[in-house]
Amino acid sequence: MTNKYDVLAIGNAIVDILTHVDDDFLESENLIKGSMALIDEERSNDLYKKLGQCVECSGGSAGNTIAGLASMGSRAAYMGKLKKDQFGAIFKHDIKSLGINFETNPAEDGPATAHCLVLVTPDAERTMCTYLGACVNLSEDDIDEEIVRSSDIIYLEGYLWDPEPAKTAFRKAISIAHAAGNKMAFSLSDPFCVSRHREDFLSLAKDGIDILFANEDEIKMLYGTDDLNEAALLAQKDCDMVAITCGAKGCIVTNKNEIGHVQGRNIENLVDTTGAGDLFAAGFLHGVISNKTIGQCGALGNLVAGEVITHMGARPDIDLKEFIAKNG
Amino acid sequence: MTNKYDVLAIGNAIVDILTHVDDDFLESENLIKGSMALIDEERSNDLYKKLGQCVECSGGSAGNTIAGLASMGSRAAYMGKLKKDQFGAIFKHDIKSLGINFETNPAEDGPATAHCLVLVTPDAERTMCTYLGACVNLSEDDIDEEIVRSSDIIYLEGYLWDPEPAKTAFRKAISIAHAAGNKMAFSLSDPFCVSRHREDFLSLAKDGIDILFANEDEIKMLYGTDDLNEAALLAQKDCDMVAITCGAKGCIVTNKNEIGHVQGRNIENLVDTTGAGDLFAAGFLHGVISNKTIGQCGALGNLVAGEVITHMGARPDIDLKEFIAKNG
Repeated sequence: MTNKYDVLAIGNAIVDILTHVDDDFLESENLIKGSMALIDEERSNDLYKKLGQCVECSGGSAGNTIAGLASMGSRAAYMGKLKKDQFGAIFKHDIKSLGINFETNPAEDGPATAHCLVLVTPDAERTMCTYLGACVNLSEDDIDEEIVRSSDIIYLEGYLWDPEPAKTAFRKAISIAHAAGNKMAFSLSDPFCVSRHREDFLSLAKDGIDILFANEDEIKMLYGTDDLNEAALLAQKDCDMVAITCGAKGCIVTNKNEIGHVQGRNIENLVDTTGAGDLFAAGFLHGVISNKTIGQCGALGNLVAGEVITHMGARPDIDLKEFIAKNG
Repeated sequence: MTNKYDVLAIGNAIVDILTHVDDDFLESENLIKGSMALIDEERSNDLYKKLGQCVECSGGSAGNTIAGLASMGSRAAYMGKLKKDQFGAIFKHDIKSLGINFETNPAEDGPATAHCLVLVTPDAERTMCTYLGACVNLSEDDIDEEIVRSSDIIYLEGYLWDPEPAKTAFRKAISIAHAAGNKMAFSLSDPFCVSRHREDFLSLAKDGIDILFANEDEIKMLYGTDDLNEAALLAQKDCDMVAITCGAKGCIVTNKNEIGHVQGRNIENLVDTTGAGDLFAAGFLHGVISNKTIGQCGALGNLVAGEVITHMGARPDIDLKEFIAKNG
């Protein structure tokens, strides 16, 4: 194809605030390990006060994925709503520093740039509490039609279904993309996000989404079954390509003709699983762009996810192009 | 003593923005490796635009030292000027999360909370560019006399000599502390900081400072000699205790009766030397508070500095009390 961008990602633009906690803390705060909870400003302030020293870095599911893609050399664009504040400046800097096109106008007033309290337990699992802030105002006006038309793949995160106006923006992107013959990729984001929007996500999978990303819990939740293989086969019917991440076990990948399991790599230095799914999607999509087989796409996803879990934070810590050249 | 606090630290309250660069970048930006340069807002914006993805965390030399002390279990207080903005909220949170008393009123308007671009080269050396922002407005009104009087040791960073009003605040703290019979500790901060304020720092060392911290370059610059031993002996005459850090070689420590070299520990996983001097001071002062010998104080400084250089960022990544119990 001769489009200007390989991938356009649209998502909630969020700065992560990372810290270590123990399991008792999650328990006492009624948080469900491994999940993402939406919280309001008051709850966020209350929770933040109880946390120890933190580290801040750019995050957001689709933001992490597009950062990974750009780091691998893909031509990338991003859309997401910030406020003109210090967290907004951080997020914008980090996206643009990777050569990603990012021109969504930040809000001049209203709620602050979104942040996510990422609580990392000793087992390297992360539990997230997100204050959506400025994200809730991403609207269809923020969708630059020309960029959607000139991107081979448009990648959307399920979390976009939480703020109401973003849903409209999401639908607008789908309709432009399909009219232009471009592909839609979609991540289910989180089991609870799936349960909040199950009917919508099911109809998206059947009609609108070409490439579907999920983890085991999310795909089972979507198809209302406890049987992973059954869920995978149902997803295969709905979408051209499906990638289901299975933690250390690797992933299950399908296209219309094939279904297979791509084993994960042994990670010796597991520190923080934040961003594992996002970077898996980056690796997989990089494979799709590079016309790799479905199995190779899964292996690339596993490889790149394996890098991000060896350090705190959800963005790659190194140049992924060099990393793939060495380890791919 | 029966004072309320073991250590009160006063310093420039700064949020660090950390990233990796190569040596060519420092060259092309005319930056001197290992040093700290003061930059204005325009230069900061220009430089930031040229950097790759960054990570943000609380910093500031004296802030890092007091964070280390609190993490070791010392009763700690801090004074430093922030603005009421997102970086200010981060800094305040991180200090308070460690149980440190911190009540300096943040500025409602004027320049933003200070930040420091920390450029880490592959050899783990850091080069810093600081935009002082709100720090320049720390004034004598911000010095809470009651807290100064009720702290066994008042720790000041040389960087405080850069913003004019902070110098007056600094002098006020010394005069209150000495009237109360409390000890003054002082870090020379940076060779260029010493060259900017050499005459003042010399008279402080001779009259006002009880415990002096420096690295090799700083102490040589202060006493105008290329001979490290000569500089150490001159410092020994001026101050009750002196600790000179010598990188991987460890430190030279003196009191009025003794002078000695405490060898450094082998660090296998050297990542980022940011905060090494600050955390050395924390370990050393913790030894002083605990009535350790001068050699034991130096060894504690080496031990704690050795932790902070194994990860990005200048604050301890773990509970230092547990770390010392295991390794001390």
